This record gives sequence, structure tokens and C-alpha cells, in this order.
Amino acid sequence: MFAQQPKYDAEGSGAFIQLAEIQPIHDGLLNGLRFAVKDLMDVAGYKTSCGNPTWRDTHPAAAGNAVCVDQLLHSGAACIGKTVTDELAFGLDGENYFYGTPVNPGAPDRVPGGSSSGSASAVACGLADFALGTDTGGSVRIPAANCGIYGFRPTHGVISVAGVNPLAPTFDTVGVLAGTLPVLVKVASVLLGRWIDDEKEVGTIHILSDAFALSDDDVVLALDESLTRLKSSGVGTIKQTSLHDVDTSCTTGLKGWYETYLVLQWTEIWSCLGSWILDVKPPLGPRTMRNFELTRNVDRSLVPGAVCRRETYFELVKEFLGPNDLICIPTSAAPAPAKGTLTLDRTTGNYYPRVLSLTSIAGIGRLPQVTLPVADVGGIPVGISFLAAHGRDEFLLSAVQRIDSLGS
Amino acid sequence: MFAQQPKYDAEGSGAFIQLAEIQPIHDGLLNGLRFAVKDLMDVAGYKTSCGNPTWRDTHPAAAGNAVCVDQLLHSGAACIGKTVTDELAFGLDGENYFYGTPVNPGAPDRVPGGSSSGSASAVACGLADFALGTDTGGSVRIPAANCGIYGFRPTHGVISVAGVNPLAPTFDTVGVLAGTLPVLVKVASVLLGRWIDDEKEVGTIHILSDAFALSDDDVVLALDESLTRLKSSGVGTIKQTSLHDVDTSCTTGLKGWYETYLVLQWTEIWSCLGSWILDVKPPLGPRTMRNFELTRNVDRSLVPGAVCRRETYFELVKEFLGPNDLICIPTSAAPAPAKGTLTLDRTTGNYYPRVLSLTSIAGIGRLPQVTLPVADVGGIPVGISFLAAHGRDEFLLSAVQRIDSLGS
Repeated sequence: MFAQQPKYDAEGSGAFIQLAEIQPIHDGLLNGLRFAVKDLMDVAGYKTSCGNPTWRDTHPAAAGNAVCVDQLLHSGAACIGKTVTDELAFGLDGENYFYGTPVNPGAPDRVPGGSSSGSASAVACGLADFALGTDTGGSVRIPAANCGIYGFRPTHGVISVAGVNPLAPTFDTVGVLAGTLPVLVKVASVLLGRWIDDEKEVGTIHILSDAFALSDDDVVLALDESLTRLKSSGVGTIKQTSLHDVDTSCTTGLKGWYETYLVLQWTEIWSCLGSWILDVKPPLGPRTMRNFELTRNVDRSLVPGAVCRRETYFELVKEFLGPNDLICIPTSAAPAPAKGTLTLDRTTGNYYPRVLSLTSIAGIGRLPQVTLPVADVGGIPVGISFLAAHGRDEFLLSAVQRIDSLGS
Repeated sequence: MFAQQPKYDAEGSGAFIQLAEIQPIHDGLLNGLRFAVKDLMDVAGYKTSCGNPTWRDTHPAAAGNAVCVDQLLHSGAACIGKTVTDELAFGLDGENYFYGTPVNPGAPDRVPGGSSSGSASAVACGLADFALGTDTGGSVRIPAANCGIYGFRPTHGVISVAGVNPLAPTFDTVGVLAGTLPVLVKVASVLLGRWIDDEKEVGTIHILSDAFALSDDDVVLALDESLTRLKSSGVGTIKQTSLHDVDTSCTTGLKGWYETYLVLQWTEIWSCLGSWILDVKPPLGPRTMRNFELTRNVDRSLVPGAVCRRETYFELVKEFLGPNDLICIPTSAAPAPAKGTLTLDRTTGNYYPRVLSLTSIAGIGRLPQVTLPVADVGGIPVGISFLAAHGRDEFLLSAVQRIDSLGS
């Protein structure tokens, strides 16, 4: 619905760190499609920057493609370049201190969202049919929603992350951003190694009230039309559900999920990247510097409790959500912030804590999620998300095709 | 049943790359227990060698502990050192060209098995109560079986691998080796963040005939007593099952699983480690050198097909295996080989292809597995394994306690 005609060329978009012309190796389902690759993933012969120049300069060129890149090239798609990412994939904003802020063509004064910022921008600008991103805590879903395109985070562990730089392996996934849902589904099908048919019956669609309550009023209002259309469509049984229905002992709401997520994510980030940071002492953007201080100083005695809570939440959702059920939430609690307005410290302010509360549902629940670009708030794109049960990626991709066909 | 009294001290065992005395940080379930850590995992302040001196020398000391190490230190256990691993965790034999071959105290002329060779040796020698290992294609299960101790490979993705060097992330897991089953279960409980009760009803125990058919006659004979005891115990319903019952269209048996596993594992290994190898050109042991040539030259056009087959196999097992069912197989197709007898090329000879055919069941099926030290072949320990459905780690750990209590 946004940027149907390209308004930005590759240079003007700021989406790319490096252009390429890598032809497909074999014909396949993705014949004729062009894709961009987040520069956190290896493409043979290229250096992977991970969004930081010192990382690029202290690591060799890639000996081979990331497995997910190979899957696409062996299925008919051509790679057109590598895209800007938030530094070391740690961020949801898309403002990279060194490589700039890729354009959000749907709202040029707003951030594109991150960390798969350039991937979202390249697709939203019409420069690529689809792009690979990574999603640890929302890094595909948030930029897709901000830029008014489709985004898919798979069930953790089902798409190969080999050749992709780790951030927090317990949550790291390779996801897809695309300009149309049929393209998203085709690409996901290749990466998952599964055939997606579109005949699946949808059970209950749980409108998660906690997630809507946490979101800006104008986001909720903007999504209302989609929900109304969904309710009258006959696709599934619509039900208002609160987290308390899932977890009757829950007193903390999504805050408990958010806090559990943060402890685990920060601990893992420092375990993955701390050694390089202490050794090399790379220049980092101010927000990235602050983020890594947080991960370094996290109280690791909280980890055993957080692991137990994560498993409890996971198990509760597993028991609650039927194989053909969906959860529906706003993808983000707020529209994309204006450029340059985010606070230095992500734990303060009104943005990160609310957005991560919503994105942590898929992370903690190990659930697949698709965001659909269905609305806007004063011209700024916002997305609606559907999540399915753990491992039900095929069903989710099938169900959202029915929902998306209701129109927007 | 083996090495109840330590016969080897730390130096004599050859199990350790570095000794340490790291006290627990908090009391907990593991109070009083001492553990060793495979030197593929970070311990704060120490260099991680990954079993190769050049890796050690080209990487900084660890800024923090691997998350799994922190979970143990925060639960009352003390760390006594870091253990030898096959180079870059790529091997099942335990013969490290640079750091030697840790002792297999149950059969000193035999290899301990790898890649968690030192972890198995340290536990089997009675020097540690338990040890952390990693298991991608059998690297906890095989050395545990070879050395006559208990070993656990969890469901992929449920125990954090942050701070653990990747080999093939689609299959990489952190597992546990222990001298007694109660210790194994306690440690697994901490790492999983789940309480293991021992009151679970066991459904059908499928004796997988393909796995027994593939194994040495004397291994099958050695395990026969355990199977007979199991059959008369009333624990579960024992059933002879073939792969054909799981996959009626299957014509290739476990060979199809093995070949699918190899393509995916080798592709991922090269995507993870190839860049470093081409850049640094490290000295490697002859077998490791040959292994990496294989991964470099794998035909990556096979990947899309292999991913589809993996998902088909995974789905078939998921449909077949009930939540309280188990699969029973020999842990290894053969007893530990004599030292120095393995061929240079792992694809030839009678050892690796058969062993990996058995270990690939958990890898491809994403199943948790426990090996129990129940028998020996002419004094060489052999193990029997039980696998449960994806995500049923708690049930598996509960069920094997009942089975193990039948005695050996």
C-alpha cells in the first residue's frame, strides 16, 4: 500500500552497504525475484560488516554463503546487495551511527526500524522483491511494520542461521521481508523446506487485550477497521483474550515477559559479543555503546530464574493455543518514531519497553509471527500481527493469506 | 559400572586442557558437585581453544561465561577445569592431533570418543561429578557410551548455546555427561529450567529394528539382557518397530537420514568455520584437514532437497511418536575403536557412516536422547539410548530413571 512506485534509487534509499549482482545458481520457485541480504549474513567473497566498520575490518571475507542465502540462490532468486543493519544487530530503530539511516519511504521523517533497517527499506522502496533479515527481539517485524511491508519471523530453530552472526542464539532467527504476501510465502516456503497450501481451517483468533492496551490509542484505532473486517469475515472465531486467560496466576502481565526476555537476551549478547568488544575496543555509536554497557552489567544471578519463567510461559502458551489458533496483536505499540528522537538508554522512555513487550511474545513463546501492513497513523504505516503455535509456521502462512485477502 | 574408583589423576587422564578452581556463585540444587567444561565453551578470563592451538592464539580471552556455565555456577556447582575436545568439535573419535587422546578408563586401549572427549574422560575417571559437552552429531552421546557413563542430548534450542563456539547451528546442542543418573537429571533440570518428576507413565517403547540391524552383532548381544529386563519390567509396552512403520514410503532406511544429515551438517560447518580457515590457514590435524576439505567441497545444490527431506522426516516422527513414547536404539553401532585405527576419510570405513546413521535420528528428528551405560563387549563399555518426542525432555529424563532403576 506504500511506495508502489519506487521513489528512491539504491543510493538515495541509503538501504545498501554494498550492491551486488549475484545470479541464481539453479532455477526454482523464486525464478525472477531479486533479493537483498542483511549485512549480518555471509555472502561468499564479501566482507560482512554487521553494521560496524571495525567488525568489517577485523574479520575476513566470507568463505561461503550463509546457508539461507544458498537456499535462495539455488531456488531461482538473484541477490542484488547487502543492506544496512543496526550495529551488531542490536537495536530496533534503524539509525546506524556509521552507515546512516535507510529511508522509510512510507514516512521519510521517521526511522525505518531495525535492526533489519536496510532490508526493510530496500523492499519498501521497490528496489528488491524481498529481503533476508534477522529477528532476535523484533528486528524483522518492527522494520516491516514501520515501512509498510510484510514480515515473517519463523519458529526458532527451523531456518538455518549458519553463516549469520549470532546476537542472542536462544532468540536468533532468520526472517523474511517482502512487498507482497505471495512473495513472502514463497520465500518462506523455500527457507522452511515446506509446502504452504492455503486450505487450512482457522480455529480461534485470540485478540490479545494486553497487547492492545499497551499500544498507542491511535495505533489501536488504526487497526480497528482490520479487526472489524476480520470479525465479519467468517475466518476463524474471534475472541478477546487476556494474558490472564493463558496464565491464571499471572499478576505482571506482559511486563513479566519483557523482563524475562531482557535478562536472557542481554546475558546472551554479552556471552556472544563481549569478548570481541573488550579485546578490540571498537568505536561504537553512542546508543550501541550504552546498550553493550547494559549487557555487560546485567545481573547474571537472575538467569536461572529467568530460564524457569521462560519455560513456564512457553508451556502455558503451548497448552493454551490450539494447532489452528492464532494470536492477534499490534506489531508495534507505536508508529515509527521521528528520526533522532530516541533516548540514549533503551530501558527508559516510552518506546523500547512497550515495543519489546509485544515482540517478546514470539521470543519467549518460540512462536512464528507474520506482520501485515494494514493501516496507517497519519500517513505512518502500522502493522497487525498474527502468531501461531510453536512449529505451526505452515499453518500461519496459510492463514494470513486468507486474512490478507480480506483487503485493507 | 566402570571406574568407580579413580585410577587416573587429572594429569594422567589427559582430559584437561586447563585446570581451574571456580567456586559456585550461589547455592542451589547442585551444591557440592564439581564439573568440567568442554573447551568449546567460554569461561570468563580463560582462552577457549576449541581444541586447536591456532584458534586459541587468534581469539581473545572470554569476557564472560557461556550462559550454560553461569547457570551451573549460580546453582551451587564448582568448575574444576576445561577439557580437551576434538578440533573445532568436528569428530566423534577423541583423538586430538595437538592435545592428545584423553583416557577411556573403561577401555584404555580404545578411544574415548568425541568430540566431548575430555569431558567424558574426566567424568569416567571420577575427576568430575559431571561435565558439559556439546552434541551436534553425537559428540555427547558417543563419548558417554564409549566411556561407560550417562549422557544427555536435549531437544535442539532448549539449552542456551550463547558463548559456545558454533559448528552447525541447526544441530548444535549443549549436553551433559555424568557418572550417575541422579546427577545427570539434576544438572539437566537446572539447564532446562524445568522440574523433573519421576512419576510419568511410559507409553510404547519402540525398539527400532533398523538401528539394531545396523549395529555390530556383539553390541546387539550385549544389549540383549537390558532389553529382556525391560520387556519383563512392565515399564511401557515394548514393540519392535522399523523405520518403515514411521515412513511407509521409505526405501532407503537410515541411510536417507544419514545422507540428509551430512549435507546439512557439512554445509553449515563450512558456513560457520570456513572463513577463519581460509583466512588464517591454521595447522590442523590430518583427519581434521580432510574433514574440512569435505565440508568445503560439499555440493550445496543438494541443500534445498535436504532441507525438505529433513522436514518430512521430522514431521513423520512427530506424527508417529506419542508424548509418552520412547524410541530405543544402541547408542553406537560399534564399541569404541582401538586408538589409531580410524581411517583418514570419515566417509569410508565401517565406523563413521554407521555411527552417524544412529546419531542422526536425534539430529534430524530434533529429539532429546539419553544414553545409559548398561553393558560391555569384552570389557569395552557400550550404551543403550532412549529418545523421546521433540520437546519432551522432562518426560525422557523421568522415564530413563525408571528404566535405569531396573539395574544392569
